[in-house]
Amino acid sequence: MFIDKSLKGEKWFLDAFSQINHYGLTDEGMNRLAYSDVDEHAHHALAEFAQSQGLSVRWDLMGNLYCKRRGRNWTAPRIATGSHLDTVPNGGQYDGVAGVLASLYALLQFKDFELEHDLELIVFRAEESSRFGFACMGSKNMTGQADYLKWKSNSDNKGMNVFDAMRALQYPAKRISDSALNPSKYHAFIELHIEQGRVLETLGAQIGIVEGIAAPSRYRVDVTGHSDHSGATPMGMRQDAVVASAKIIAKISELACAEASYGSVGTVGRMQIAPNAINVIAGDVEFYVDIRGVDVASIERIINGFKDYALTVSETEKVRIEISELSHDRPVVLSTELASITELCAINADLNFIRMNSGAGHDAMYMSQVMPAAMIFVPSKNGISHHKEEHTELSDIATAANLLVDMIRMIDERDRRFKFEL
Amino acid sequence: MFIDKSLKGEKWFLDAFSQINHYGLTDEGMNRLAYSDVDEHAHHALAEFAQSQGLSVRWDLMGNLYCKRRGRNWTAPRIATGSHLDTVPNGGQYDGVAGVLASLYALLQFKDFELEHDLELIVFRAEESSRFGFACMGSKNMTGQADYLKWKSNSDNKGMNVFDAMRALQYPAKRISDSALNPSKYHAFIELHIEQGRVLETLGAQIGIVEGIAAPSRYRVDVTGHSDHSGATPMGMRQDAVVASAKIIAKISELACAEASYGSVGTVGRMQIAPNAINVIAGDVEFYVDIRGVDVASIERIINGFKDYALTVSETEKVRIEISELSHDRPVVLSTELASITELCAINADLNFIRMNSGAGHDAMYMSQVMPAAMIFVPSKNGISHHKEEHTELSDIATAANLLVDMIRMIDERDRRFKFEL
Repeated sequence: MFIDKSLKGEKWFLDAFSQINHYGLTDEGMNRLAYSDVDEHAHHALAEFAQSQGLSVRWDLMGNLYCKRRGRNWTAPRIATGSHLDTVPNGGQYDGVAGVLASLYALLQFKDFELEHDLELIVFRAEESSRFGFACMGSKNMTGQADYLKWKSNSDNKGMNVFDAMRALQYPAKRISDSALNPSKYHAFIELHIEQGRVLETLGAQIGIVEGIAAPSRYRVDVTGHSDHSGATPMGMRQDAVVASAKIIAKISELACAEASYGSVGTVGRMQIAPNAINVIAGDVEFYVDIRGVDVASIERIINGFKDYALTVSETEKVRIEISELSHDRPVVLSTELASITELCAINADLNFIRMNSGAGHDAMYMSQVMPAAMIFVPSKNGISHHKEEHTELSDIATAANLLVDMIRMIDERDRRFKFEL
Repeated sequence: MFIDKSLKGEKWFLDAFSQINHYGLTDEGMNRLAYSDVDEHAHHALAEFAQSQGLSVRWDLMGNLYCKRRGRNWTAPRIATGSHLDTVPNGGQYDGVAGVLASLYALLQFKDFELEHDLELIVFRAEESSRFGFACMGSKNMTGQADYLKWKSNSDNKGMNVFDAMRALQYPAKRISDSALNPSKYHAFIELHIEQGRVLETLGAQIGIVEGIAAPSRYRVDVTGHSDHSGATPMGMRQDAVVASAKIIAKISELACAEASYGSVGTVGRMQIAPNAINVIAGDVEFYVDIRGVDVASIERIINGFKDYALTVSETEKVRIEISELSHDRPVVLSTELASITELCAINADLNFIRMNSGAGHDAMYMSQVMPAAMIFVPSKNGISHHKEEHTELSDIATAANLLVDMIRMIDERDRRFKFEL
């Protein structure tokens, strides 16, 4: 990988994307799964290029990559920025990699010793949960939020767990807990990412300033009725698992719509019916509920409303309903101070921006637990993500990358000024 | 196959069922698919036994089997009774075969020349639609209701259509239309069948006197919304195919419940969701609607109500909804006269009976188009059918078979008396 120094903005990104996405590009979309060979090669190609540009490169024990631009004051805590390179199967060309390249671009806009603080690009490993069932493994590990026992218990479709995959690439899987970072050495973390939704596009905004990251509360709902002949069973004698499920699903949507002003959402996107025949009343339905938001009280209203309604339905439809909680995480509030800085820079640059929340999880979520964190969203065309049709305009990415540069400069200066004033 | 003459009632059936279900019994249930080798063997075993008992045996060109007990007056139209031997894959031991054995039992209770009319057992071929996609092929063929072009176009999972299957068993497939029966030679047709529902069991009735057979109106509904990230898409920006479908399904149930007093039912038992992931709003749902009843106006109210509501939902949920009609048959009313005779016999025998409709289709449906037809239902345990756990008490079958004997005698006598009175 090598990008010509003379290229700027959009053209730099055109070259950079085509080079990095050489690793894992297929007709069905990007296939750069966490800890796959192409994933490993992509990380090394990026590291080599960073080194060639005068950045110092370091790897931690699980392969998270750190590239540093040195500041004048080596005791000052670092300003970090980054994202991930791994993709889902048949994924898009922008999810993760847009943030990595924008961060790299930002670091390249500065010279060594130009800023007070060190600048650091962090390329997180295994952000996507597709292969091992766990998201943000790199950021969880470096912030002490990893559950290694769980990680051990889940395997990919070839029977390898994440530790097996690390070992296969010569990482010392047993010692990765030694790679927790020291938060006192960090001043801020900024992640640029594609929105993966349609809000920016719909509102015509170039930049989303993320205030909070919604955490999903997820449930599996098992509805057990009775399989009967669709013609031979009068309505009053049915225990129809599909009807019971339909009522609950409609209710979840209704509850979430009532909470829309708090930014909460509720979704049922996965459902299995048995025996699934046109002339048989379904005896069993399994469906999954995904409820998210940034307002805890609003989320709880949806969850409680859905559980209460399921109880009613189980009585009226004479079915057994079991609700299993799969996760129930708390939403994350990002740094309000960094959001203000982002907004100030956006105003200075005359950009159309909005403040918004992220419905999807990101590495910034875990970083924000140990240091002030911010996120910048760029528009996703038609909101499509995790799909080969995922697209973001390079001009939008360049605009956001320049905003990132401005932010870094403002954070650096502000902090310096603050110290002088002391 | 040979059943000892000394056995009567329940014991006769115990022996008869075990002998006939020897053909096709597996650990997963009965597997006696239409025109399979075991199906053919079962028909021949039954024919040989019937012949050994003094019945005259005849096959038509597609293998429908006729066994006759001769009456005194060979010019009098026959009283026919029967059902089918073929099963669905992994089916039960009673569907179809209960009626065949009960009819055979009934014929064996009479001597040649004891009755005025000839008695005829008809064993229909290919009643189940599982193998070739069409139900009641034997009865459709003998009553001139077969659509040979359609039959030709559909194949089983090995690529054989029903004509190939007939030819494989040496039946002259090309000439089967010659096997239409002459309705003027038939006085009545009676089919005994398991209920395949829970109505009789729930109401504690031994006998169901079937007044009408519901015909299914079937629809495929394709709902097209937009696949989006479940976290990144606010409620108001969604085109959620699952929510739209859930609302329609709940409405169909509501509409059918409102028509319950007319005996109408509405079911969605088959549904496919794409991409079917917990964190993706589903862009596509396909589901199937099965609406049945015996009251045409009531059925139409459900159909129109469901279509109207789908239109509303397509607007409110911003999804495209396509409804394709798969079938829209008219319900069949069976002979009211024969139902009265059945009721009279049931009262004489001090049986608990109810009048009811059949939600499932049967050969009697097609026979009723060309001659007066009646059906007797016997209780299905837990309403389970088309499954290895399908069960009907042999005592109930014996009771119903004796009712069939009484009915035959009453029909025969009544008709004779009527003629004498002329």
